[in-house]
Amino acid sequence: MTVTLDDLAPTDRSVAARTAAHSDRSGWSPGTPPDAVVRPGSIAEVQAVLRWATAERVTVVPRGAGTGLTGGASATAGQVVLDLSGLDAIESIDPVTRTAVVQPGVIVADLDRAAAAHGLRYAPDPGSVAIASIGGTIATNAGGLRCARHGGTREAVLGLDVVLADGELLRTGTAGPRSVTGYDLTSLFVGSEGTLGIVVRATVRLQPLPVSTATVAALFPDVATAAAAALTIPAADTLELLDGATLAAVDPVLATDGAAFLLIQLEGPSALAEAAALADRIRPTAVRVDITDDPARSERLIATRRGALPAVQRLGRVLIEDVSVPRTALAETLAGIAAISDSTGVPVFTFAHAGAGVIHPLVLTDDGAVTPRVQETVDAIVALALRLGGTLSGEHGIGVLKRRWLADELDPVARTTLHRIKDALDPAGVLNPGKAI
Amino acid sequence: MTVTLDDLAPTDRSVAARTAAHSDRSGWSPGTPPDAVVRPGSIAEVQAVLRWATAERVTVVPRGAGTGLTGGASATAGQVVLDLSGLDAIESIDPVTRTAVVQPGVIVADLDRAAAAHGLRYAPDPGSVAIASIGGTIATNAGGLRCARHGGTREAVLGLDVVLADGELLRTGTAGPRSVTGYDLTSLFVGSEGTLGIVVRATVRLQPLPVSTATVAALFPDVATAAAAALTIPAADTLELLDGATLAAVDPVLATDGAAFLLIQLEGPSALAEAAALADRIRPTAVRVDITDDPARSERLIATRRGALPAVQRLGRVLIEDVSVPRTALAETLAGIAAISDSTGVPVFTFAHAGAGVIHPLVLTDDGAVTPRVQETVDAIVALALRLGGTLSGEHGIGVLKRRWLADELDPVARTTLHRIKDALDPAGVLNPGKAI
Repeated sequence: MTVTLDDLAPTDRSVAARTAAHSDRSGWSPGTPPDAVVRPGSIAEVQAVLRWATAERVTVVPRGAGTGLTGGASATAGQVVLDLSGLDAIESIDPVTRTAVVQPGVIVADLDRAAAAHGLRYAPDPGSVAIASIGGTIATNAGGLRCARHGGTREAVLGLDVVLADGELLRTGTAGPRSVTGYDLTSLFVGSEGTLGIVVRATVRLQPLPVSTATVAALFPDVATAAAAALTIPAADTLELLDGATLAAVDPVLATDGAAFLLIQLEGPSALAEAAALADRIRPTAVRVDITDDPARSERLIATRRGALPAVQRLGRVLIEDVSVPRTALAETLAGIAAISDSTGVPVFTFAHAGAGVIHPLVLTDDGAVTPRVQETVDAIVALALRLGGTLSGEHGIGVLKRRWLADELDPVARTTLHRIKDALDPAGVLNPGKAI
Repeated sequence: MTVTLDDLAPTDRSVAARTAAHSDRSGWSPGTPPDAVVRPGSIAEVQAVLRWATAERVTVVPRGAGTGLTGGASATAGQVVLDLSGLDAIESIDPVTRTAVVQPGVIVADLDRAAAAHGLRYAPDPGSVAIASIGGTIATNAGGLRCARHGGTREAVLGLDVVLADGELLRTGTAGPRSVTGYDLTSLFVGSEGTLGIVVRATVRLQPLPVSTATVAALFPDVATAAAAALTIPAADTLELLDGATLAAVDPVLATDGAAFLLIQLEGPSALAEAAALADRIRPTAVRVDITDDPARSERLIATRRGALPAVQRLGRVLIEDVSVPRTALAETLAGIAAISDSTGVPVFTFAHAGAGVIHPLVLTDDGAVTPRVQETVDAIVALALRLGGTLSGEHGIGVLKRRWLADELDPVARTTLHRIKDALDPAGVLNPGKAI
């Protein structure tokens, strides 16, 4: 009797399940939906599925919460989706070593909340923190508002349990804070978008909640002035920039004549004093500077930043781009994006994790369609970022949708090296083919 | 006419050069000295040597300053040593992006000094900072006193230029602070001990010099009390522990009845106030607590820690071990090491980067010889660390000398994975064979 997928783990072949697993939040769906969605309830089941997939040469697309923005979890006919959302236990939190052991299906915000009960937090905070799974953020090496100061997902992951293509279980990392035994396999799997192995457990670092947080919200006459001010604030815990178009979408009253917005947060025992000094420093070029360490007032200031993406999305479907540049190139990149938008006539709304140089231009589609002028706008933005020493993805990953520019950033030696590693770990090519590299 | 090594780069076949390249600071020398020492003066020459080596199937041992402690740079007959000490330029320092571009032969302390001229520092500070090369510290992913708080070499490296086994030049990383394009090749090469490629240039992160530093030196009645106190100080910038034997070697007056020593440093605008609070917290279990933010007085307190290794080395040749354990296992590990020393009769002097859980037991040889009881002592210490969830190398690397325990820490799946990656990037096996993995 032949073993089938259904013998190995709960398998769903309903149209609803297959359609849901056809795409991610990018909206991109390749061809027709995948053949099946398998939902393992244990690591052993993940191993059995991978062993089967390699033996049968069936390609497997791992899926967390499906909130990715680059089509990395999109799957099509002939493929099986490995849905890890059921592996969603927070196995342990150790307040002394400040670590947690979690399964990949845990929602990031749930881990953060569980850590808070111990006076701790999980630092990586992508915009999708309330809906994204830990496994998905490990797959993409997600960043977030705190990543310039506290690192992104890679810096928060101490060790991984990974099911390899052949079904073997690999353990990386160490229980302690530091090891140099062997190559850094943990960092290799973080950000590999499920193309090298399936993360089934992660040991992550937690950090103490700050004893106090001060928030500064500053309005500048234009984005160039805001970017210049941002450059003088290298050590903020949060440093977010909204350009004029974005600010106008989120707060038309505040936004006058292209005024741009900076949201700054400083943490620590002397946060308010440091914030006051910082506010004095930026006030000469600002239109208005608000400062507070009151949590409720902070929330009101932060609301402007938090509202940016939803406000722009109310104007129409946007492509959420994700370039990153050296901090010194921030002003030039923002000016260049505005010039591109002027030239193509396609509205672009830009906000940035300015501390990390990560820039999210929201490119408005033509009534939902990626017409040539929309594509031209995106291509020109990516080319600009690369010309200024940047990268085509600061935190969303490559998936399918950004592969078109991979050769513009990585030379043949780099691309060959990536494929050599992929081929070494997944010789049959069953793991999320056509993604990431 | 056949191309020889001498045609490709300056090559030294003198007995003196070959003998010097036979070993590192571990003192371990395999067989007879290597055939030649080649000293490239450019990246192109490194590429030419590697191209030749792969074509001729000659194995190449990269060498920085030769200060490693595990035989990683030791070379023998039939091998060519690739001496990178001549590539020693600090190519640039950018105070705005807080980055430096350096060649591998730069001495770590020289980079730190050059950064200081811009109000910056290079955080990784292994004990060998005055003599080790950047390339060597990248090869081993060196740690140091600041690594618990500020990270080790991996966290400081943003990008690398690497000559691969076939002579191709690979560029990893990004000019900006963040990229998720492709796999994390930078982290893969950091700590790979020259087995995957030759680092010929590095872009590293610098950080601002602290505005003030407070130092706390505390004496405890015994090492268990000191370790317990260390566990309550998770966020120190420096947290160093000396056990009773080590303290007795460095300061016989201070060391009475097994008293142990903690050196703590806190940085930042409120360092002294935070240090005072910390001192109040540990005082109940301490014999004596000194606190200062005066640089000269700090230096005197630090001298005790700095003097530890030289003081012990004056007692005879020691094996410098390098296990690492979770911070919560520190006290149990130190007690276990003392018990092992009692049982074998071999003196062991232990100091630790307590914040990172990195423990350096200095195992006294029998008049320079690694006799069975000395080896038994070291084996038992490594087994203890692994049993307590630790690792056999916290920061020195594996080299040759720690490979004997590799299978005790890494299971067959992990070892196979490491070798798959090695074989993918160096199929001819010419790069530092028999090391690291």
